[in-house]
Amino acid sequence: MSKLILVDWGTSNFRAQVLNEKLEEVHSISSNEGMLQVQKNEFHAYLINILKDHLEENSIIIMSGMVGSMNGWIETPYVHCDASLSLLSTKLVKIPNIKENIYIVPGVKSLKNNKIDLMRGEEVQIFGALKLLNKKDAMFILPGTHSKWVEVKNEKIIDFNTNMTGEVFNLLSTKSLLAKSISSHVINEDSFTKGLELSFTNTGLLNQIFQARAQASIIGEHNVYSFLSGIIIGNEIKEMKKVFECKDVIIVGSSSLNDLYTIALDFYKIKIQSVDAGLATKESMKVLYKEIRNSRNLI
Amino acid sequence: MSKLILVDWGTSNFRAQVLNEKLEEVHSISSNEGMLQVQKNEFHAYLINILKDHLEENSIIIMSGMVGSMNGWIETPYVHCDASLSLLSTKLVKIPNIKENIYIVPGVKSLKNNKIDLMRGEEVQIFGALKLLNKKDAMFILPGTHSKWVEVKNEKIIDFNTNMTGEVFNLLSTKSLLAKSISSHVINEDSFTKGLELSFTNTGLLNQIFQARAQASIIGEHNVYSFLSGIIIGNEIKEMKKVFECKDVIIVGSSSLNDLYTIALDFYKIKIQSVDAGLATKESMKVLYKEIRNSRNLI
Repeated sequence: MSKLILVDWGTSNFRAQVLNEKLEEVHSISSNEGMLQVQKNEFHAYLINILKDHLEENSIIIMSGMVGSMNGWIETPYVHCDASLSLLSTKLVKIPNIKENIYIVPGVKSLKNNKIDLMRGEEVQIFGALKLLNKKDAMFILPGTHSKWVEVKNEKIIDFNTNMTGEVFNLLSTKSLLAKSISSHVINEDSFTKGLELSFTNTGLLNQIFQARAQASIIGEHNVYSFLSGIIIGNEIKEMKKVFECKDVIIVGSSSLNDLYTIALDFYKIKIQSVDAGLATKESMKVLYKEIRNSRNLI
Repeated sequence: MSKLILVDWGTSNFRAQVLNEKLEEVHSISSNEGMLQVQKNEFHAYLINILKDHLEENSIIIMSGMVGSMNGWIETPYVHCDASLSLLSTKLVKIPNIKENIYIVPGVKSLKNNKIDLMRGEEVQIFGALKLLNKKDAMFILPGTHSKWVEVKNEKIIDFNTNMTGEVFNLLSTKSLLAKSISSHVINEDSFTKGLELSFTNTGLLNQIFQARAQASIIGEHNVYSFLSGIIIGNEIKEMKKVFECKDVIIVGSSSLNDLYTIALDFYKIKIQSVDAGLATKESMKVLYKEIRNSRNLI
């Protein structure tokens, strides 16, 4: 039984952390029933069923991620930059017409420099990582399908850029001409670094990815996947360095991707610190939970 | 009946031009039986059958394109840069052990600037376009699935770069997250130009393509395809301008793609001339045909 359950419900995964009265994690639950796998009218039933052994009457469930998007359970309006954790806490959306206390954290929107950028879920990781590191200003990278570079000043997200790095890599390595030259999906660090070196040269991504084909017989087909990964992650870093001043950054993410980004950022002479995404999320969520308790006089 | 038949046998298309004794085109034949659709041991039978109404005993068939690649009929070695048309003519590969006179033009390989680049088929278009325009030096662009930028000096291909522009655009517009935001495949010039404007800004391709998603509701889902096309073609041009000095270029290709590249190159302040790919190919092939006749004492 628990006071607080945190749910990160993304496009293709569901993850929950069940916390006890001291806000320590006592259970974790995950499934690949992402919000795309759940019908609009079945979110409630799915959630209650998967959490049934952990719910009590006063439990509060706080959810982040794409579950708050147009195709999710309820669309929550974005909070605009400059966005703080305390602003987020005032914009939580409570799911109406159900007996459980379920809240969705709004996403964050940036409208700077004539562009639009969007996040849902990463914001709680960022504010949590700030707390864990006791920082007010920082540059964050959240690697992934849609890798995000996020600038924080005075504990506010002031701007960010999304890069479709992971999605482009997956498409190229499985659906393009290059797929025929790939015989292994194991990362070889030397070939990854060769890809980084190529990314640093003066041609662009559209040309460099062709090199993964043209050089396949030289680097070996078992290394093309790594070479391509180095090219694409390297291009993300090269371009983002032009946008953000970032001599040191904080990576929040899963360990395998963190490792590749660590090598790549080192190559581009950017210092890094890493923070676990789950720990970071929990740190923010505890703050949001306290706000909910205070403002709604729960407990 | 004919003296010369030109065949451009690429990955996904077959095109033949049948020329009379005066080397004027009298028939053209095309099919979508590209070399990927034909089994290794069936190239000969397929070719003779599709040309059966036009062959005579002394006919010479000259083929270019991916038919000369590893997965084609016979793999022809590449000619290295600096590559001239007369060098190509000495490296033609005659198909052995058949009664017909069938030749394959070798491709061209560039090993400059620590990279490898390859072409098969474009070389005959380039040398032909040079002849048609009566030039010795030029910068060429051959737009397509794998768009090529080719530098020619003193009638020799001295270097070139392939960009996977068309393939990346096709993958993103049909298989990525962006596909969900695309409701029309008709090009809108205004949205294409907005994509070009975005390409000119200081973020890279991986970020800019996400804008096609983030701005979809503003530009309209029927315009996302055009916006994305402008972003991707714009990035190709922006990057290639760093590699090649090109204030004016010659485009060789199909008319619909040429139109988009014309708009895009104009945006990037590059002057252009256009040459039809079929006419250009014929011009080179006539030269190769004369070399074959002379060197082999045919006719």
